[in-house]
Amino acid sequence: MKKVVAGVDIGGTNTVFGIVDNEGKVLAEGHLKTTDYPVVTDFVKAFSAALKKLIATKKDIELTGIGIGAPDANFHRGTIEHAPNLAWKGIVPLADMVRKEMKVPVVLTNDANAAAMGEMVFGGAKGMKDFVVLTLGTGLGSGIVVDGKLVYGHTGFAGEVGHMTVVPNGRVCGCGRKGCFEAYASATGLVKTVSLMISEMRDESSLRDLPPAKLTSKAIAEAAAKGDPIAVKAMEYTAEKLGFGIVNTIVFTSPEAIFLFGGLAQAGEMLFKPVREYLKKNNYVLFKNTVKILPSGISESNGAVLGAAALILNELNN
Amino acid sequence: MKKVVAGVDIGGTNTVFGIVDNEGKVLAEGHLKTTDYPVVTDFVKAFSAALKKLIATKKDIELTGIGIGAPDANFHRGTIEHAPNLAWKGIVPLADMVRKEMKVPVVLTNDANAAAMGEMVFGGAKGMKDFVVLTLGTGLGSGIVVDGKLVYGHTGFAGEVGHMTVVPNGRVCGCGRKGCFEAYASATGLVKTVSLMISEMRDESSLRDLPPAKLTSKAIAEAAAKGDPIAVKAMEYTAEKLGFGIVNTIVFTSPEAIFLFGGLAQAGEMLFKPVREYLKKNNYVLFKNTVKILPSGISESNGAVLGAAALILNELNN
Repeated sequence: MKKVVAGVDIGGTNTVFGIVDNEGKVLAEGHLKTTDYPVVTDFVKAFSAALKKLIATKKDIELTGIGIGAPDANFHRGTIEHAPNLAWKGIVPLADMVRKEMKVPVVLTNDANAAAMGEMVFGGAKGMKDFVVLTLGTGLGSGIVVDGKLVYGHTGFAGEVGHMTVVPNGRVCGCGRKGCFEAYASATGLVKTVSLMISEMRDESSLRDLPPAKLTSKAIAEAAAKGDPIAVKAMEYTAEKLGFGIVNTIVFTSPEAIFLFGGLAQAGEMLFKPVREYLKKNNYVLFKNTVKILPSGISESNGAVLGAAALILNELNN
Repeated sequence: MKKVVAGVDIGGTNTVFGIVDNEGKVLAEGHLKTTDYPVVTDFVKAFSAALKKLIATKKDIELTGIGIGAPDANFHRGTIEHAPNLAWKGIVPLADMVRKEMKVPVVLTNDANAAAMGEMVFGGAKGMKDFVVLTLGTGLGSGIVVDGKLVYGHTGFAGEVGHMTVVPNGRVCGCGRKGCFEAYASATGLVKTVSLMISEMRDESSLRDLPPAKLTSKAIAEAAAKGDPIAVKAMEYTAEKLGFGIVNTIVFTSPEAIFLFGGLAQAGEMLFKPVREYLKKNNYVLFKNTVKILPSGISESNGAVLGAAALILNELNN
């Protein structure tokens, strides 16, 4: 019997899960539409049935645990708490519910923490003790690893770097406060920057012809690569804000590397290069040339599943 | 034989050391003028001789280790590196040098980290796993404890929260950058705020009559307590900046408490109350009402010696 774990990524729209071996190979994958299950008990039943069915398609495997990445997840309590992007309101004891159905250990954390575990176990942070993963998607999530362990803090919610204020009295953030890091350094933040620049600047830009639904971070990165002046300025502005937040991050835990993951990170060197230059100029003297800015070593496509799998593997091995 | 440790606090001007038992009782204390020893080997000899002499005054004690707090100290390497406030230039392997003289284990970290260890072992953080100590003196030092351990990071210099930028393009900091937390939320920062307010505002103020050498954070706190308008405004401004930096600190490690230590913290409720109010309003939603803002539980007078003693006790016990 080959021992395997399941990695689960619960998103606002879709839930993806996979059976993963110790080497990080995804043996089989399945998915559910999260929005089909407005009642969480129905979700747990449907998910457990689907996972059992997936396991049955493989011979000679034994499920030893389940790792789940989900928004607003609390590692200490195994709960999802007041997640604005999920239909399940209040405090949901998801880890316990899944454990009762599947009879194996279940751990739960937010998707950015899971991404950090994935990076440590299967990705570019193998062998590193101190690093940070920033997931630059709709928002900005973060997983902080100190001395080989994820930082959960007193509440279980530590690592909300996206809600560090980077611009006092700046842009309104989804959290209701102003000037948060994620309001600038995320795919959504880049789109917002372009929208503002389009209305405030006179430069010609192909982005002016795009309907709002097509104005994505991908479209902006592509326009910037072609030299579109507004796209270029928006990327520069975003990289500067990202650099600013990274410099402020470094003074806390002095990481060996900061990994950039998610939609905005796909812009590649167009983003990484100015961020590295920002650090060269602005990093605090004790930390100059001590931090690598790296792309994630995990592929975007199954990163969430691998991260969740790494979370439970790490738990089972410690 | 009663087992004891030595706690040593090396400052730019004075070095204080004490013999401390397991319960945090300082059995004897000594001191040297750091500035008398521009050559570090002379310092180590003089210090070792003085410590041996101090030990000889006590009967039936056995020294088991030495903890040292010093500026720009690197825990991993046991070194003091390029300390601008010390005459010893370059990289000084102080832990090794003292170990050779004293033949006991020696550990070294910066004074704020030592203060955090003191808080955990002897002070208000007993039993806490996740907390932060901010030392608000000439600068702003910080010691971050995560899951019961001090965060040293990849470089050994982690916890430089005083050099987080809180005001983009703000006041020039001693580090050469602009807008650092310590340029505002420290005893020095408060004095600077008053100097600026005196020149920019018309309000009457008793502080206008003080020569610069007497314009201290203590004098300002006393004037504020009497209702002096500029002193009151300066305290409010400082508390707001301190609150801002604390809110940004919380999103990283989600501490149970933040301890304020050092000269500026002596202002007491005049500082603590507005900081707590700032947090009520501005803390990120996941961390609302999860963080206590507390005065240090260690007395100012021997805090540095106790912190350094706690550092080595913690090392010997783990």
